[in-house]
Amino acid sequence: MADMLDQIDGVVFDAYGTLFDVFSVNQLAEQFFPEQGGALTVLWRDKQLEYSRLRSMTGRYEPFWEITRSALEFSVRALQLNASGQQIDRLMDCYRALEVFPDVIPCLQKLHDNHQKIGILTNGNRAMVRSVIEHANIEPLIQFVLSSEDVQRFKPDPAIYALAPRALKTSASRLLFVTANGWDASCATLYGYSVFWVNRQNRPNEMLGTKPRFVGSSLREL
Amino acid sequence: MADMLDQIDGVVFDAYGTLFDVFSVNQLAEQFFPEQGGALTVLWRDKQLEYSRLRSMTGRYEPFWEITRSALEFSVRALQLNASGQQIDRLMDCYRALEVFPDVIPCLQKLHDNHQKIGILTNGNRAMVRSVIEHANIEPLIQFVLSSEDVQRFKPDPAIYALAPRALKTSASRLLFVTANGWDASCATLYGYSVFWVNRQNRPNEMLGTKPRFVGSSLREL
Repeated sequence: MADMLDQIDGVVFDAYGTLFDVFSVNQLAEQFFPEQGGALTVLWRDKQLEYSRLRSMTGRYEPFWEITRSALEFSVRALQLNASGQQIDRLMDCYRALEVFPDVIPCLQKLHDNHQKIGILTNGNRAMVRSVIEHANIEPLIQFVLSSEDVQRFKPDPAIYALAPRALKTSASRLLFVTANGWDASCATLYGYSVFWVNRQNRPNEMLGTKPRFVGSSLREL
Repeated sequence: MADMLDQIDGVVFDAYGTLFDVFSVNQLAEQFFPEQGGALTVLWRDKQLEYSRLRSMTGRYEPFWEITRSALEFSVRALQLNASGQQIDRLMDCYRALEVFPDVIPCLQKLHDNHQKIGILTNGNRAMVRSVIEHANIEPLIQFVLSSEDVQRFKPDPAIYALAPRALKTSASRLLFVTANGWDASCATLYGYSVFWVNRQNRPNEMLGTKPRFVGSSLREL
């Protein structure tokens, strides 16, 4: 892996689930809906991804912020939670201030000290990504942000994966793409990136006919 | 709804979840993995849909049969079930012999007596769809089958929804599309079909910016 870092032109991170903990909304969800917070958090995330894919496939782009809100509204209905508009708003506010995983800042700092180009490639729209980056105080460590907003498509559409090689004027294989989402790790590998899958939850490899080049359980292994 | 049937050129059914009960595999799953059969059945179905979408978005078509098998293999690993190759094979065999919902045959018979053109538009590949149709003894009631195999794309890609209007030489709005899957109901509506959503599980409407034209709890309401 250390050798690998000499042969690349940049390190591209996924945002949600990789740098920022989407399940950090769980505490507030549990406070609002005792014993249902966990179920809400999981369904919310699943629906968010599902809606992004359905909208990408049908060419009906909507900013990821709106998708996240629709996913939350569907989820509270599906779980028959009696949620007020204010509770919905407060849960959405959490999404602007997600916690960073504890291994993130040391990893970014090391790559930065090592003079790597560091960026983010995300389904998030620019405004919502800016908020979490600012909240985490990691602006000085991030040199570029590439967003679904730029192509109106979501991962794993090739149009969004194409953004990083184009921005850095190199090939995907000379970029290290880092993600904690198994499907993203597989699809970025299919696209041609050198991928490091941060398999935080010790999940099996997704069965999509490929394997990420590197796998570890935390960003410390990068 | 009865008026509506005079104004259309055909009735197009989704297959899995609408005509054929994908959860009828649950009994064998429960027998193989006591108290885990339900979880396996749900994860298997979710992964099946997820893989079909990820493959459609990345242009990596694979027959739905293979996708279904990959989804099952992932699911037993994710749930840490100790499944033998023979158990996997037997669960896959179930998929060739899924039960039809009890409201299906009376509904097809009525439409048939009413001289409607009746067909299926499905993610399934031809061989697997042929098996369930034969097992259910409904061949005489089905006049056409349109499959993902014909376009190498899965729903909700517009390429697959385009098959029925093209085959019947009419517009999507003059076809009644019948599905029990909420996402399929919403996306077919976005495509332009007149949709009847058989909301068998009393789920909320998917928040994709649209509403199916007709909603009922069973095919008896069609």
